[in-house]
Amino acid sequence: MPIYLIGMMGSGKTTLGNKLSKILNMSFIDLDKEIEKIENTTINNLFSKKGEEYFRNLESKVLKNTEAKNAIVATGGGIILRKENRLFLKNHKTIFLYVPVEDLIKRINPDNRPLLKDGKDRLYKIWDMRKALYNEFKKIDLSNLNIQESLAKILYEIIDEKEEILENDFQEVIIKYKGLMDLKNKKYVFASKNVYRIYREFFNKPFLLKEGEEKKDYKNLEYIYQYLIENEISRKDEIYGVGGGSVTDLTGFIGSTFKRGLDFYFYPTTLLSQIDASIGGKTGINFSKIKNVIGTFSIPEKVIIDPITIISQDEKNYLSGIIEGFKIAIIDGNTSLFTENIEKIKNRNLNILEKIIKYAAITKLKIVSKDPYDNNIRRLLNLGHTFGHGFESITGITHGLSVGWGIKKEIELFEDKIKEKDKKIILNFLKKILPEEIFKKDIPTEKLKNYIIQDKKINNNSIIDFPIIKSIGNVELEKIKITDIIK
Amino acid sequence: MPIYLIGMMGSGKTTLGNKLSKILNMSFIDLDKEIEKIENTTINNLFSKKGEEYFRNLESKVLKNTEAKNAIVATGGGIILRKENRLFLKNHKTIFLYVPVEDLIKRINPDNRPLLKDGKDRLYKIWDMRKALYNEFKKIDLSNLNIQESLAKILYEIIDEKEEILENDFQEVIIKYKGLMDLKNKKYVFASKNVYRIYREFFNKPFLLKEGEEKKDYKNLEYIYQYLIENEISRKDEIYGVGGGSVTDLTGFIGSTFKRGLDFYFYPTTLLSQIDASIGGKTGINFSKIKNVIGTFSIPEKVIIDPITIISQDEKNYLSGIIEGFKIAIIDGNTSLFTENIEKIKNRNLNILEKIIKYAAITKLKIVSKDPYDNNIRRLLNLGHTFGHGFESITGITHGLSVGWGIKKEIELFEDKIKEKDKKIILNFLKKILPEEIFKKDIPTEKLKNYIIQDKKINNNSIIDFPIIKSIGNVELEKIKITDIIK
Repeated sequence: MPIYLIGMMGSGKTTLGNKLSKILNMSFIDLDKEIEKIENTTINNLFSKKGEEYFRNLESKVLKNTEAKNAIVATGGGIILRKENRLFLKNHKTIFLYVPVEDLIKRINPDNRPLLKDGKDRLYKIWDMRKALYNEFKKIDLSNLNIQESLAKILYEIIDEKEEILENDFQEVIIKYKGLMDLKNKKYVFASKNVYRIYREFFNKPFLLKEGEEKKDYKNLEYIYQYLIENEISRKDEIYGVGGGSVTDLTGFIGSTFKRGLDFYFYPTTLLSQIDASIGGKTGINFSKIKNVIGTFSIPEKVIIDPITIISQDEKNYLSGIIEGFKIAIIDGNTSLFTENIEKIKNRNLNILEKIIKYAAITKLKIVSKDPYDNNIRRLLNLGHTFGHGFESITGITHGLSVGWGIKKEIELFEDKIKEKDKKIILNFLKKILPEEIFKKDIPTEKLKNYIIQDKKINNNSIIDFPIIKSIGNVELEKIKITDIIK
Repeated sequence: MPIYLIGMMGSGKTTLGNKLSKILNMSFIDLDKEIEKIENTTINNLFSKKGEEYFRNLESKVLKNTEAKNAIVATGGGIILRKENRLFLKNHKTIFLYVPVEDLIKRINPDNRPLLKDGKDRLYKIWDMRKALYNEFKKIDLSNLNIQESLAKILYEIIDEKEEILENDFQEVIIKYKGLMDLKNKKYVFASKNVYRIYREFFNKPFLLKEGEEKKDYKNLEYIYQYLIENEISRKDEIYGVGGGSVTDLTGFIGSTFKRGLDFYFYPTTLLSQIDASIGGKTGINFSKIKNVIGTFSIPEKVIIDPITIISQDEKNYLSGIIEGFKIAIIDGNTSLFTENIEKIKNRNLNILEKIIKYAAITKLKIVSKDPYDNNIRRLLNLGHTFGHGFESITGITHGLSVGWGIKKEIELFEDKIKEKDKKIILNFLKKILPEEIFKKDIPTEKLKNYIIQDKKINNNSIIDFPIIKSIGNVELEKIKITDIIK
């Protein structure tokens, strides 16, 4: 079934449609491009040589030809002028991408737009003439949203609700498309500012947290306790954490300590938090620059994973999640899910993303259920983290990318232990996913040292259970003296 | 077997000996009093009429006559002057109570002391002459200790080590006389300043906490996290909380949150913490003036109860513990353990104290094991607390005494529900134990209100499970609307 995107020129129909098609495994049709192909000329030329009437007739015909296609169809801005087109579009899935005219003007190059040959200000007139017609369709407001965020908002219109419980004995984890819609009637929601900005219509007065580890600190914790007291939260109330790992970690810590424990729920909105932070019952805050040094083991009532929210992530944070997933695959064995789908991963194909989320989440659940309090095999998940945490603290680079760097560093350090073939597979994937400047970055060991010795997993004889990659699917903990690593 | 107290005049041999005898169920013999009885005159008269030689002969004879007595024997200051006395004392349990001369001078009234008739300064000479002789005996340094504290230090010399595990499935609780001696080789000990002052020789550089709820706060918690980080505490280290309930609550919270949990041990040193705070797995700190509003359920590895430490408590805090124990007895039924032993309780008889500790601790363990997360019957333990907590916050009066007041207030409020006979038994006991000004104190309900509505147990419909005494041994939770109580 085709999905039609309508909207003013410059509203992003082509860019977003093209990307959407890759996310959804559909083909992409740009009506203007189809017309140009048929007539073997540009739209500009067609307008000036044969006139608008000729163009509109052709446009209607081409539009109807897409009816049987499984495609995202980007239409021309004027398509809604004809009643027959509007009738056709109403009989199909059609979405109106709304962007305020002020913003459109900034984006558009008038040279390619025949209707703007007398100047951009004409856009206001065009909008005034057409807005009633556009508004007959389902409108998505893309004001102040970037491309990824816009895609997510469109997906929220296109995709059907769908829910699947991940089978495991450890904690309740549900993949739920459009899960954020649950939040409308919830009272005590802690949300990252960023998620609130994008998905505002799903919230009802949340307590807003700045995204990023720096807000998962002692001072912010104090504000939230104060907020809960002022709002007279009772032990029977429920709290919700919506955002990345820092939001869910903090919410979990509050949920496990306020009045000795409230029920708490996670809606992780980043890939990293969906497959890592929200799974396994670790909560925590940072203290004195040390990550998660204060925390509890406490399992949320439910974790609701909405894969659409991954589409709205910025690139670095998205890839950060991919690398944590890849880390899990190195431990468990199924790296081909990643290495054979690099293009799809880069295009955020939802089908492959759902597979990655399920695989990584279930694998992590399998590991943590064997060792909930992190005394032995759960430490395998620490792969790349001893160096990665240090790198993250020094450079401020996102967690997963830092872990990617850490995996590379640790492979180099224990080069003699890993199978040559697997080393190549891993480093090759990291090279394709990590930005080049990170992949190649070097940090003097002296600088890393101070952070490495604060690793929670080091015991009082300075021994750490260090995950060593022998081969893909065979990572083993070895007792390593931390001072030996530093040397 | 007799136990002999020796030491300079004014070192407290009579006062302490008399109290010790009541603590230990022994008789008390004051050698000077015995001599006065035999000679039917005062020691002063005897000295001036018959001379020191006559007195010393008599003293030696009277001393030897005590050999078969099960008694605490207070001797005269000069008893060690004779070699035969010293030999006799060395063949028996003898303790030298050391108090610096400067302090002795402050205490003594020279009129009753024949050797000081020429002025108090002679005491320095007497001490110089005798100190070598005193020092042949086991010395207990009572500098800067009050009477109760001195008694505890003496008991630490007199009593044998003894250990008993309290049978239960919930947590490991051990009654261990002289248990504090375990702490000598422990590294991370959080101790109240007060306990450290009294029992300093059992510690090795503890982290000192001021006694009292006000230090169980967010700011102090921060200091301790900082201390743990600076000392590079690993997850495998153990921490120890030694003091009253505020110290163990705080230590437990730290133990359950630092690096997501260290092993922690409690050495509760107050009766209240021994039978209440350290049992049941509640940890907590105060926040924004609300008690224990931040906390966890987390069970210490072990609780070591040393009954001797109760002897060193000040009176109000001691009685505070008695009232919490009595509260448990009201719920469970055995109030006669309290009401039939009022004199012994006031004298802190160790035999009865041990019975009370065991009874209250085991009963509390029985209740909490049926409801570890405080959802139903554990709330019976809240008896007297809804009003007691408010009273405590307003007046600053110790917890248990406030609870005593709260029980009285709650009985008056629900007067029609309690059996008349049992009401009398309970109020009669409270009247004998609570200081009169507390028993009779009135607080306007308006003032109590603000504190009462913050009770953690109130749910979001303002309903509280309120423990109502029907009779002794039959306390029931009734759902009460908090606004009804306030009216």
